[in-house]
Amino acid sequence: MRGRVRMAIPEELVELFRREDDFLLFTHIQPDGDTLGSALGLGLALRDFGKKVTVVRTDPVPEIYLFLPGVGEMQDWRQVQGDFRVGVLLDCADPERIGEARELLPKLPVVVNIDHHGTNSRFGHYNYVEPQAAAVGEQVYELLHVLSAPLSPAAATCLYTAILTDTGSFRYESTSAKTLRVAAALVEAGAKPAEVAEKAFETRSLSSLRLLGRALNGLELSADGRIAWMSLSREDMAWAGAAEAETEGLINYARSVQGVEVALLFRATPENKIRVSLRSRHWVDVSQVAASFGGGGHPRAAGCTLSLPLKEAQQQVLAKIEEALGEAGGR
Amino acid sequence: MRGRVRMAIPEELVELFRREDDFLLFTHIQPDGDTLGSALGLGLALRDFGKKVTVVRTDPVPEIYLFLPGVGEMQDWRQVQGDFRVGVLLDCADPERIGEARELLPKLPVVVNIDHHGTNSRFGHYNYVEPQAAAVGEQVYELLHVLSAPLSPAAATCLYTAILTDTGSFRYESTSAKTLRVAAALVEAGAKPAEVAEKAFETRSLSSLRLLGRALNGLELSADGRIAWMSLSREDMAWAGAAEAETEGLINYARSVQGVEVALLFRATPENKIRVSLRSRHWVDVSQVAASFGGGGHPRAAGCTLSLPLKEAQQQVLAKIEEALGEAGGR
Repeated sequence: MRGRVRMAIPEELVELFRREDDFLLFTHIQPDGDTLGSALGLGLALRDFGKKVTVVRTDPVPEIYLFLPGVGEMQDWRQVQGDFRVGVLLDCADPERIGEARELLPKLPVVVNIDHHGTNSRFGHYNYVEPQAAAVGEQVYELLHVLSAPLSPAAATCLYTAILTDTGSFRYESTSAKTLRVAAALVEAGAKPAEVAEKAFETRSLSSLRLLGRALNGLELSADGRIAWMSLSREDMAWAGAAEAETEGLINYARSVQGVEVALLFRATPENKIRVSLRSRHWVDVSQVAASFGGGGHPRAAGCTLSLPLKEAQQQVLAKIEEALGEAGGR
Repeated sequence: MRGRVRMAIPEELVELFRREDDFLLFTHIQPDGDTLGSALGLGLALRDFGKKVTVVRTDPVPEIYLFLPGVGEMQDWRQVQGDFRVGVLLDCADPERIGEARELLPKLPVVVNIDHHGTNSRFGHYNYVEPQAAAVGEQVYELLHVLSAPLSPAAATCLYTAILTDTGSFRYESTSAKTLRVAAALVEAGAKPAEVAEKAFETRSLSSLRLLGRALNGLELSADGRIAWMSLSREDMAWAGAAEAETEGLINYARSVQGVEVALLFRATPENKIRVSLRSRHWVDVSQVAASFGGGGHPRAAGCTLSLPLKEAQQQVLAKIEEALGEAGGR
């Protein structure tokens, strides 16, 4: 961890986990690999450590995560019976992230917040917030390590899944030397990298693949190959049988074309507007382009919505992008 | 490294690298990230260690690897001038892997073989062959570590690229705890995981994306969703402007469909035959199916070529697969 300062785990938090016996672990709504893997891994390890633990969900677990050890014993928040001493929220920047399950929070004497979002509202009685952690799974590993809690292959598999999925297979900016070292320790404890990757990444829905096919078939380049754009009509969505959420990630295919600086995805929404996603690779500030159409975002990833027919929306946005590309001259 | 025995680096090899001053490092034909990253990383580090080094190529370097530090100083084997003491082949199971450049080998007093293929023919005067290494980059790191050679950010970037690409971003079976630990050390030495991943993985040719679009548009399921198959005609290939090699990897999209056990890609060849690629996920032995059509391969990945029109080839192969699925009954 050269050049980065890492917060140590709060001493009182470690003491709390040693002292208390009843834990309710919360996963966030629309659960992802990090909240599920972290909660299940912490749950399994705490149980092996002699504690009573219940892992709670608000939403159903996506099919690709049903391989996670312990997933079968998760409880819907409405089923939770009895009294618990400590509630632990994993991967939640604020309590709203657990949805309706937050009805349970006032009954809990102690609330613990373990999270890696920079925007975390520090809502817990105990907060272990580490924005430099690539995944909450990395933090949970640290906590268990400090506790000297045993780490079974099952718990290691959960935590490895959390890290693998939240770093896009160690490809995101957040991946640090520490992330890789924790992953190594989890493999030593019994996690199987190839098996987890196969389960977490190598399964797609037929509809999402059909949608990808449609999007790629309409892939077009302009501005001498510096802009790549794709479009999806309502007919495309219906033909593929795809949900709106399945358009996520499609734009990365356009962005990946050799020589492309700006990638665009034009998508007709159910309200018959045109949702535009914008990505740039190196230097074009697409958040400015998006802002000029009433949208926003980051310099390399932004979005806006236009109340125009598809063709007109395309013309207007493409013209703005060409302007942005042109302004920087021969770059 | 629990449960695996790792060969130590031969003592004489370490001594050789300490003693000698002139090195010619060879990369294999059709160079990949491992041979390039290992040779360039070793070359940069040895130079920092005070040695004279030339890195040699037989084939041109693929565009996606042109970001590698030191790549501009590689020499085509025909350009190599002067006398060298030690030739080092990286990622080569046998000397044929360096192609025509092997004309240079008889002139070299010492040949070193650093490789991780189980089939390695141990052709060198010195052999450091480690089938359990996920990449030769992992072995080169070990060697430099034992030599106490300095590791610059540039050299670390090369070795990280070798490991990242040869493990498919830490997803292949070969990924061990040691692989991840070496990767962590390389990040500490200055390799940037997100930058390398972006360069090595996030760039695709327009033609390969168009081909993927065509293949996905014809994606079909049969046998209650247990078989997924795609077809590419000569027209599809021509429309996409794609080379035959760009069909590689397409079948993984079919294989990734939820619930699929067997995936097939039917592709018309320039000779107007039908090349069939077969993959299975869990239990169907596709090598047997391929063998029944005169092909072969492994239980989970096989291929065969049929001299039949596309439709007939599809019918015959699908029937065999259905039979194989049926034989196992209600699995």
